[in-house]
Amino acid sequence: MSGKVSWQARFESARSNRLFELFIILVIIASALLIGVKTYQLPGWVKPLIDGLDLLITLIFLVEISIRFLGEPQKRAFFRNGWNLFDTLIVFISLIPIDDTDSALVARLVRVFRVLRMVSIVPELRLLLNSIISALPRLGYVAALIFIIFYIYAAAGSLFFDRINPELWGNISIAMLTLFRVMTFEDWTDVMYETMDVYSWSWIFYLTFIFLTTFAFLNMVIGIVVSVLEEEQSKLDTEDPNRTSLANLKDELTEIKTSLRAIERRLDGDENSPG
Amino acid sequence: MSGKVSWQARFESARSNRLFELFIILVIIASALLIGVKTYQLPGWVKPLIDGLDLLITLIFLVEISIRFLGEPQKRAFFRNGWNLFDTLIVFISLIPIDDTDSALVARLVRVFRVLRMVSIVPELRLLLNSIISALPRLGYVAALIFIIFYIYAAAGSLFFDRINPELWGNISIAMLTLFRVMTFEDWTDVMYETMDVYSWSWIFYLTFIFLTTFAFLNMVIGIVVSVLEEEQSKLDTEDPNRTSLANLKDELTEIKTSLRAIERRLDGDENSPG
Amino acid sequence: MSGKVSWQARFESARSNRLFELFIILVIIASALLIGVKTYQLPGWVKPLIDGLDLLITLIFLVEISIRFLGEPQKRAFFRNGWNLFDTLIVFISLIPIDDTDSALVARLVRVFRVLRMVSIVPELRLLLNSIISALPRLGYVAALIFIIFYIYAAAGSLFFDRINPELWGNISIAMLTLFRVMTFEDWTDVMYETMDVYSWSWIFYLTFIFLTTFAFLNMVIGIVVSVLEEEQSKLDTEDPNRTSLANLKDELTEIKTSLRAIERRLDGDENSPG
Amino acid sequence: MSGKVSWQARFESARSNRLFELFIILVIIASALLIGVKTYQLPGWVKPLIDGLDLLITLIFLVEISIRFLGEPQKRAFFRNGWNLFDTLIVFISLIPIDDTDSALVARLVRVFRVLRMVSIVPELRLLLNSIISALPRLGYVAALIFIIFYIYAAAGSLFFDRINPELWGNISIAMLTLFRVMTFEDWTDVMYETMDVYSWSWIFYLTFIFLTTFAFLNMVIGIVVSVLEEEQSKLDTEDPNRTSLANLKDELTEIKTSLRAIERRLDGDENSPG
Repeated sequence: MSGKVSWQARFESARSNRLFELFIILVIIASALLIGVKTYQLPGWVKPLIDGLDLLITLIFLVEISIRFLGEPQKRAFFRNGWNLFDTLIVFISLIPIDDTDSALVARLVRVFRVLRMVSIVPELRLLLNSIISALPRLGYVAALIFIIFYIYAAAGSLFFDRINPELWGNISIAMLTLFRVMTFEDWTDVMYETMDVYSWSWIFYLTFIFLTTFAFLNMVIGIVVSVLEEEQSKLDTEDPNRTSLANLKDELTEIKTSLRAIERRLDGDENSPG
Repeated sequence: MSGKVSWQARFESARSNRLFELFIILVIIASALLIGVKTYQLPGWVKPLIDGLDLLITLIFLVEISIRFLGEPQKRAFFRNGWNLFDTLIVFISLIPIDDTDSALVARLVRVFRVLRMVSIVPELRLLLNSIISALPRLGYVAALIFIIFYIYAAAGSLFFDRINPELWGNISIAMLTLFRVMTFEDWTDVMYETMDVYSWSWIFYLTFIFLTTFAFLNMVIGIVVSVLEEEQSKLDTEDPNRTSLANLKDELTEIKTSLRAIERRLDGDENSPG
Repeated sequence: MSGKVSWQARFESARSNRLFELFIILVIIASALLIGVKTYQLPGWVKPLIDGLDLLITLIFLVEISIRFLGEPQKRAFFRNGWNLFDTLIVFISLIPIDDTDSALVARLVRVFRVLRMVSIVPELRLLLNSIISALPRLGYVAALIFIIFYIYAAAGSLFFDRINPELWGNISIAMLTLFRVMTFEDWTDVMYETMDVYSWSWIFYLTFIFLTTFAFLNMVIGIVVSVLEEEQSKLDTEDPNRTSLANLKDELTEIKTSLRAIERRLDGDENSPG
Repeated sequence: MSGKVSWQARFESARSNRLFELFIILVIIASALLIGVKTYQLPGWVKPLIDGLDLLITLIFLVEISIRFLGEPQKRAFFRNGWNLFDTLIVFISLIPIDDTDSALVARLVRVFRVLRMVSIVPELRLLLNSIISALPRLGYVAALIFIIFYIYAAAGSLFFDRINPELWGNISIAMLTLFRVMTFEDWTDVMYETMDVYSWSWIFYLTFIFLTTFAFLNMVIGIVVSVLEEEQSKLDTEDPNRTSLANLKDELTEIKTSLRAIERRLDGDENSPG
């Protein structure tokens, strides 16, 4: 049993080795470059070379995941980490051989996602992605409100403009896509002029929609800015306990007051003692 | 009379019931989905089913509004609330039967607005919408200035470019719509190149317009950011009375000064008493 | 001479009269509406009516300017105010009769600028415009840097792409207009794809230009936000002298230290007096 | 040897002379105007004039660089400054005579870069550019994340849409350019509708891409705003040592506490001395 422990310890030290990490990052970059190269028109003799490199990278990833898994003291904790699950899944799907059928596209897509392993292995990128994802729920209600605005305008648009251009307003899904296009100002006047030929008042529909969504979006951005600034402020206050804060000053003042009360008491004693 | 009171109490407890609220939210979602489904091409036999569901939803809403109205201790206060008025209006217009005439479009549009009931029933969304609406008057003068810029440029544009393209510059309303299009950068160069063929200096018209509106808009956004940050700050100060603020510290200092003056007075007494 | 003084006093009180001001605002709005109406196709009999109203408004403005001028105690100060100069100019040019020659366009344009009198008469709008204009010099060096970027890219673009499409790159002025179009993302890929057919590397030209200008523009916006926030802060500090500021607290602490030094001196006296 | 030193001193005073600097700025502006003029169609007799002026400007720049180099006490330090290197390079390449071959384009391009000498000579512009460049590394990880998003979407886009339109999705480089176009909202719906004809679900591809990049970009902008605000704050604190800060107040409080302790000690002495 002590033998097994020593194996695990060896794997554990391997996976936290800087050189090992650097090597894996280089393999990920090579994998990304390979994916890029494959999108170009290549002479026939290159294909087997690329397939060989692809297999090599898959095997290196397999060995790496195994080392990381065997190096983990608690096997269950390994799969509780979302990034580990993602890495394992990507590697195992990569093991399925590519043939030239339709499923080949899926297999090649999985190889594309291997680039995301860069985020899972560089701690700064992982932190950044986590901070971006953690900002999302904050936007919950504003996102819900924007969705309701989209839904109502899409339903109304589909109701009135369906006969004018079913390709843009045929049903509520297409109408929402069209409204997203209007929100990005992409050829929105073409959409508007077309419906204005039939309903001349329909510019009201587009202008109110643009104002409402722009305003709600602005509201969301300002909300993020304010909350980020506040977080930053409170982080500064808690991070550095030696930093002079208002609470620090209050503590100092409390000490001074205690000291003054002691002086007053002594002076009272002075007055009383001679009496 | 005591019987009547007990009925009202029952309704009052019903409308503040969490399960009742959840049920109504689910009915609103069902109503929204129904509106969405109706925009698709459907087989003939589905239509009566949808009409039945629509009637059912209308009846549930009618019962809900009745319960909320009967549960209100002061009947007048019920209609002073804008959201109650909105809900009642939407439900009663929904009761008018849909036929396949032109007014059917209006009746279907009213059903679309039933999705807005989501905002009226979820307190967080109601709060958010109120806060967005309350931010609008703040923008009053900047909005007025932007409108004046639009009006002057639209009048000048209509004056000079009317003969070039009456579809874009025919009268001041169309010209304002064209200028809004220019402001969103949507194919604005097509509009400009067309007038530059006749008046080669007309790029000045467009560039000054873009600079002025962009700058005024930027000014507005910054104004909102600053005022939101200040509000947030003052809210923090008033919300939590135990929070250390500068005013707190000043109060502490005042106490210390009072205490010091007491000490000085006693020391003066000490000096005088032996004399 | 006393008679003259009383006349001036009467005019002075007239021009600061709230009702007089309100009347002038209504006349300006009427003037703006008249300008708007004139851009529509109108039946023949309306023209004399509009011309009559136009003359009436011009006369009212003439009387108003006269009252404001005569009511001014120091005649020189009147013309030192830019808005007064603007108002007088607009009114006097309006007096030149409109005929249907080419100069008629200029005369009608001057009437359009009468809408700007709204800004000159409503103090809030005047203040807002002044604050926007006063923010401009702050942007001086960033604007100069953006202009240099535009100039260099326009010169290089005109050098290389002139032969490809002289309508977009014919000379440095046209090239700057084309680059402004690229900066607003308006059909910029059409411009790029056209030059990429000849110079396949020319996407570097467009992408570096977009990155540089976007980044410089972002820098400018952030600069404005920061300086507005700081101004707002310092305004708050100076506006309300009773507001608790850090400087206030420092003054309090200085008082406390003076008081403490007095106590120490007295205690020294106590110690010395018995000796 | 004393003669040599006096020469250097003369050059050193020349290069810091305000008039000399102003003259060089005027020459740079003249050089910029000349570059602009050359992009216009000019009558034949102007060409020799422009070539003469061009030579004159090159010679003036040569003399100026020589004076600045000779006026430098430490010759090595001169080339350690990037701007000096840039200026010298531009001037020496300008000395190569322009003929009408292909390399003429390069020679003319070098003359265009002479406009950048404006940035190297006006200190405010140099500072601004340095501050913009120094802000870039801060964006490092967000830029890396955005690049990874682009790379993955470009690889996937090239994989699926290659057959639909090879001009937009032919290989990973072209696909990244197409995605940049989608990010700027430039005719992005044309790109989307084309692929939706084959893969009707492909709107998910575009919408998730737009959301991810917009959100990451927003994150980057907010990051810059927050760090600029913090820098500005800390600069204010360190710049003006007399400014009342929280740390100042803490120092004052420490003095007060020392003073109080002295008083307590004396009072203890009072109590003990009579004993």
